[in-house]
Amino acid sequence: MKILITGGGGFIGSRLASALLARGQLGGTPIERIVLADQVAPRADLTSDRRVEARVGALAGQCEALGKEGFDGVFHLASAVSGECEADFDLGLRSNIDTTRALLDALRAATGRGKAPAKLVFSSSVAVFGPDPSVPLPPLVGDDTLTTPKTSYGTHKLVCEHLVADYSRKGFVDGRSARLMTVTVRPGRPNGAASSFFSGIVREPLAGVEAICPVSSEVSHPLTSAARTVEGLIAIYEASVEQLGGRLALNLPAVNATVAEMLAALEEVAGPEVRERVRFVRDETIAGIVANWPKGSTAARAARLGLKPDKSFADIIRQYIADCRAGPDAAQSLKGLAKERHA
Amino acid sequence: MKILITGGGGFIGSRLASALLARGQLGGTPIERIVLADQVAPRADLTSDRRVEARVGALAGQCEALGKEGFDGVFHLASAVSGECEADFDLGLRSNIDTTRALLDALRAATGRGKAPAKLVFSSSVAVFGPDPSVPLPPLVGDDTLTTPKTSYGTHKLVCEHLVADYSRKGFVDGRSARLMTVTVRPGRPNGAASSFFSGIVREPLAGVEAICPVSSEVSHPLTSAARTVEGLIAIYEASVEQLGGRLALNLPAVNATVAEMLAALEEVAGPEVRERVRFVRDETIAGIVANWPKGSTAARAARLGLKPDKSFADIIRQYIADCRAGPDAAQSLKGLAKERHA
Repeated sequence: MKILITGGGGFIGSRLASALLARGQLGGTPIERIVLADQVAPRADLTSDRRVEARVGALAGQCEALGKEGFDGVFHLASAVSGECEADFDLGLRSNIDTTRALLDALRAATGRGKAPAKLVFSSSVAVFGPDPSVPLPPLVGDDTLTTPKTSYGTHKLVCEHLVADYSRKGFVDGRSARLMTVTVRPGRPNGAASSFFSGIVREPLAGVEAICPVSSEVSHPLTSAARTVEGLIAIYEASVEQLGGRLALNLPAVNATVAEMLAALEEVAGPEVRERVRFVRDETIAGIVANWPKGSTAARAARLGLKPDKSFADIIRQYIADCRAGPDAAQSLKGLAKERHA
Repeated sequence: MKILITGGGGFIGSRLASALLARGQLGGTPIERIVLADQVAPRADLTSDRRVEARVGALAGQCEALGKEGFDGVFHLASAVSGECEADFDLGLRSNIDTTRALLDALRAATGRGKAPAKLVFSSSVAVFGPDPSVPLPPLVGDDTLTTPKTSYGTHKLVCEHLVADYSRKGFVDGRSARLMTVTVRPGRPNGAASSFFSGIVREPLAGVEAICPVSSEVSHPLTSAARTVEGLIAIYEASVEQLGGRLALNLPAVNATVAEMLAALEEVAGPEVRERVRFVRDETIAGIVANWPKGSTAARAARLGLKPDKSFADIIRQYIADCRAGPDAAQSLKGLAKERHA
């Protein structure tokens, strides 16, 4: 089978590709080819696999050609992030709504030419939930919570959830939407997402660098590791629509933790000297955005598929450290960790 | 002030224009001009008013020019209907999503040129609600019911609700979305909407013609008159965002009635010989679509604005008869009504 991963050069896309290559099959069918489409080139360890092809460039311009390749499965992860969408309204609409429609239309055209409808997993987001004057957010947002996004990014994700469902209802694709929780710990530099600090307050102290936490320690949020997210995307791909409980988007599992709990976990895993590298300097813009986010989530439908959250936030940190150790930049990224803990 | 009504040649658009011309003001500001944009020419009695201008043609091609006219208020009613959207997927996307975006972008461009953001009322629909395997529809759908459309039309309306909210959050327009219930009794010929028979089973018997009811007499649905709908659109225009309880779309009031109750009302108003012109011949396609629709609705936020549903379905029929009597085709449209009742 042939699989397309949009955003295949990104954090989740790369890990999904690795996981699929390691499995060798999806839904019992051998994987012959994985195409990674992204604006950035995929990791060299992925493209060195003879099953992998890279398509580097803007996705919008590639959709039609990709549709003609006849993919059996598609993971649509490419997206402008929340901060980018708030800063550049048109970029957000183009990258998130127009490109998703171009992709859906390309897959629909393939179905029109007689191919079986491609199975499509769309990565939606917890950002579809927001507080509303007339419908307050419940303490934990669930699969059946009213979606009232309060960012452009969340609006785009919600719009695409419903487009995917409608194209699927018409038989043009076999789509399902999974709402990703906030994935931590992201490696590398802070990105344009307002949620960037959830990774930064762990990543920077581990690298021996001071981190700024722009919100209060009481802020609570649904968090997940990259590994659980990839596991969720694959499980949702493999599930039947009946097992999924329909086409409506569903939440992926999360650990609901406060910043204080995150920092306590950091101390537990890495020691007090690491935790002390986090300073609180309130940023009203970020605090204002985050105040509109859910404090936590439930994932009843994902649980019925056997999906579980990470055991704890400490476990999420341990996974990040293990990832760093396995990578080429361990010395740099774990510079702040005491030798005995690093070993 | 200058007002734009898209779909201004249509059933609701014409009545809204009449009502606005009769009031002479909106939110206390005198109405200097009303532009009616539609694919069909507006009623002659409207264009004979010196305040009215018609723009006949496809809306998509007119948006940019309309944006440059600098409207203070916009009622965006133009839409492809449910049956059309199911029959022609691309037409639906173009007419309902792309055109709404073009209109929003044109209004946003005007705001960018220094004009105060145009006040915009978007006519959404009860079709945003549908039954889902994981979230069954409640007996009555409310403002806070999870929106899970099961038609392309409902999907487009929901998408546009959220685009209007996001453009408003950014300050590009001052938008609000009102969900119209099923407006009866529509005059003229059956249209492409699967809900067309809700009007037909009253309109045809009153005109002395047999009508086919394609669903069972137990089918229940939220119904409203054109007059209450126009009243609702105007009230939602005039309300502040605080009075509305935020930007989230809200339901307009409805009479929740079964087909049996509708026919009993027809007999009450027009007599048994009129009611007997309705025959039940089940149409599986229409019955299947209608089975996915809400059985009734509530409208708590509209009620807080002072909006009320029609007194009864009999009252809705009486309004239709009064409308016919006032129009040029009374003899034809009330041909089936006994003389003493027609008088």
